[in-house]
Amino acid sequence: MLSALIFTALAANIVHAKSDNFSAQQLSQVESIKKEALESDLAWSLVESLTTEVGPRMPGTPSDKAAVAWAVAKFKTMGFDKVWTEPATFPKWIRYSESAAIVSPSPQKLHITALGNSISTPKAGIQAEVIEFETLAELENAPENAAKGKIVFINYRMNRDRDGNGYGPAVQARRSGAVVSAQKGAVGYVMRSVSTAHHRFAHTGGSHYKDGVTKIVTSAISNADADQLHRLIALGKPVSININVQAKSMGEGTSYNVIGEFTGSELPNEHVLIGGHLDSWDLGTGALDDGAGVALTMAAAKLARSKGQTKRSIRVVLFAAEEFGLWGAKAYVKANEKRLNNIVAAAESDFGAGRIWAFESNVHANSLPVVRDIASMMKSLNVEYIGKNAAGGGPDLIPFRPFKIPAFGLEQDGTDYFDYHHTADDTLDKIDPANLRQNVATYAVFAYMAANAKTRIIGKNLLTK
Amino acid sequence: MLSALIFTALAANIVHAKSDNFSAQQLSQVESIKKEALESDLAWSLVESLTTEVGPRMPGTPSDKAAVAWAVAKFKTMGFDKVWTEPATFPKWIRYSESAAIVSPSPQKLHITALGNSISTPKAGIQAEVIEFETLAELENAPENAAKGKIVFINYRMNRDRDGNGYGPAVQARRSGAVVSAQKGAVGYVMRSVSTAHHRFAHTGGSHYKDGVTKIVTSAISNADADQLHRLIALGKPVSININVQAKSMGEGTSYNVIGEFTGSELPNEHVLIGGHLDSWDLGTGALDDGAGVALTMAAAKLARSKGQTKRSIRVVLFAAEEFGLWGAKAYVKANEKRLNNIVAAAESDFGAGRIWAFESNVHANSLPVVRDIASMMKSLNVEYIGKNAAGGGPDLIPFRPFKIPAFGLEQDGTDYFDYHHTADDTLDKIDPANLRQNVATYAVFAYMAANAKTRIIGKNLLTK
Repeated sequence: MLSALIFTALAANIVHAKSDNFSAQQLSQVESIKKEALESDLAWSLVESLTTEVGPRMPGTPSDKAAVAWAVAKFKTMGFDKVWTEPATFPKWIRYSESAAIVSPSPQKLHITALGNSISTPKAGIQAEVIEFETLAELENAPENAAKGKIVFINYRMNRDRDGNGYGPAVQARRSGAVVSAQKGAVGYVMRSVSTAHHRFAHTGGSHYKDGVTKIVTSAISNADADQLHRLIALGKPVSININVQAKSMGEGTSYNVIGEFTGSELPNEHVLIGGHLDSWDLGTGALDDGAGVALTMAAAKLARSKGQTKRSIRVVLFAAEEFGLWGAKAYVKANEKRLNNIVAAAESDFGAGRIWAFESNVHANSLPVVRDIASMMKSLNVEYIGKNAAGGGPDLIPFRPFKIPAFGLEQDGTDYFDYHHTADDTLDKIDPANLRQNVATYAVFAYMAANAKTRIIGKNLLTK
Repeated sequence: MLSALIFTALAANIVHAKSDNFSAQQLSQVESIKKEALESDLAWSLVESLTTEVGPRMPGTPSDKAAVAWAVAKFKTMGFDKVWTEPATFPKWIRYSESAAIVSPSPQKLHITALGNSISTPKAGIQAEVIEFETLAELENAPENAAKGKIVFINYRMNRDRDGNGYGPAVQARRSGAVVSAQKGAVGYVMRSVSTAHHRFAHTGGSHYKDGVTKIVTSAISNADADQLHRLIALGKPVSININVQAKSMGEGTSYNVIGEFTGSELPNEHVLIGGHLDSWDLGTGALDDGAGVALTMAAAKLARSKGQTKRSIRVVLFAAEEFGLWGAKAYVKANEKRLNNIVAAAESDFGAGRIWAFESNVHANSLPVVRDIASMMKSLNVEYIGKNAAGGGPDLIPFRPFKIPAFGLEQDGTDYFDYHHTADDTLDKIDPANLRQNVATYAVFAYMAANAKTRIIGKNLLTK
């Protein structure tokens, strides 16, 4: 592996000497940064500290507050030139307890979790017969009152893939399952987890209710439990379960985006924006989602700055309350709307800690030569360049999209990501230190080069020729 | 793979034609049984039914009673000639609830399970500072009162291996940790799970108290939680946790060994004894431990009988209350002590559902030629013959040992077994159907040949020449 890396690194160097956008010295510094990043445990020590000393970081909780303090302190210790917070508000929701069981025909526990925003059941739970649907669409197409008095169970099986393409189709039943179930007369809703796992963890995640539609409890069971329920139902006898969720919507909560910046030497207002989200769900310690993104972008910024001040600034934004609906990102865009044009390149890391396998841009055509220069310096890290120029940029960059800033995708291998996503099992041991270092190296190359390019990268908000 | 199997099968056939212990027709029937077993889903359908329609089977619970009824009915449906039950009593213990959390310095949940036999804590749990030891021996060697007023945490890391050799050393801290902790003044005991897993499941299992030593709560946390606790303690500040266990010892319980027998044609009293244990812990559905052993030995007996009556009987014993301390096996030995000499070969399957990779005997030297004939017919199933003649035979055969019956080990690959053992994650999806079929085939070869051998296999209870 290493010898292959060295070989492609040498091959890559020959190309770079020809760049119009970067001096030979700069390209040599990029090689040096890559090397240092691949030997650095800075990101590991950051994510270890965050997930151990703070732990889970549910928006609006004391732990979330501790995470904000942690981030401010770390940015300062790491020598960032400016460190500040910006408030974000969101609808706060708290989980107290959750349990479920098959009541008949064969009593046994189910491993369940309430979906975010769920109402509570009565203290003794709700108990009813289960009616199974394969997909949300099948439920939508069912007759009026098809689920009257029953608990709807949607057993949609998510697809596993490196790029996580199974998530979108699966998440529909999480977001809207309870609403459609209530419209069909159901008294409760439970789904197969949005998950690719073969373990007995239920996956939580955001869900919503709709005005005018009765709110019913909304929950997910582990894949193993979904299989069990499916087999029992297939035997043809009525299957009854009990669901007990105690949770509460708490009105408006407040948290903070935490921002650290290394100031640029020539064009300090122009800046690269990288980051992750500081909050997590409450079940695990949020190591993959998104402790890794937080840690690796903080470490990458530090390494990108390690050869001296960059021409433009490098800003790390740790977004608040992402899990509840991108509330930190929305607040950031609102508070900084007039300055978004200063962003020369933006990328959020929020897809675990798998190896980065591809680099994509979403920029003005004039900026593609710079993008290709950056991509060529990532080759030695086994990162492919995808030339479609249509990158999304990460969940917290969605609120930025109307402004067509230069967005980038540093695409992680997410094959296993949805085995752990939003579960109690999202813990530090799921991060591979070598992959984390490769991520840091890739982000450091990206941040350094975007900050130092001769001509700034521009977004599609400017007219294309 | 298949072509390799066929090749070795053909090669094996040539050897067998020379056997003194089996006729050519018998050896041909063995080949036919193997083939049918490798195509049969009988064992899968049995373990699917047991784990789905009965679910967890904790000794003395209504589900355990349902499992006994299930086994009796299945034996009858499958056409066993005799089906009966024999009672076994045991100290009954029930788990109601369990939870734990780090209270300070960084509040977060711990995934915990009570060990079998644990006392309850007060309703609000117990709360104390944690003191960590690497091994039980380190705790034993600690000064008097070393753990006074504290919760002892033993963080012993179990070794992963195909033959499960890590279990013995690790299980000492489960069996006796609470006793030694109390002797050192502790108010509670928690251990790193006896586990090779990287998932957030706590592993339960048997434990004991000692007369004259204060009983304290005894529990295990998942490996991920043990790592977290270890990291926090290593930071040097006092770490306090709360453990809340509600459980109860219920006096004497009763369950039943369930026995099915195919009667032999010539020597019906002489019999092969195979089986597993019918009970399971309450956390999972006991698919690997020991639904698989139950199902595969039932299926193997059926296949061994499929060419007509065997010369000797084939008996399947599904032992009761194994998890609480081999109570069914002890009762079986006691009730059948005078007839144990009728056993011509015994093997229990209780190590999951991994591929069988080795075959070992523990018999009188005179019987080794028959053993080698049986082993040679397993070669095509990729089963090695281990010639040490010192097999253990499986946990439920431990009470048989003083009688030196002919015991056998059909050794499963247990590399992953302790990832799931005694956890909520021991569910049907952990069984590989192809491996299960290979197990059935191996047990069917074993049962057929031991039941049909010209000369009976004898144990070491007879004088060796």
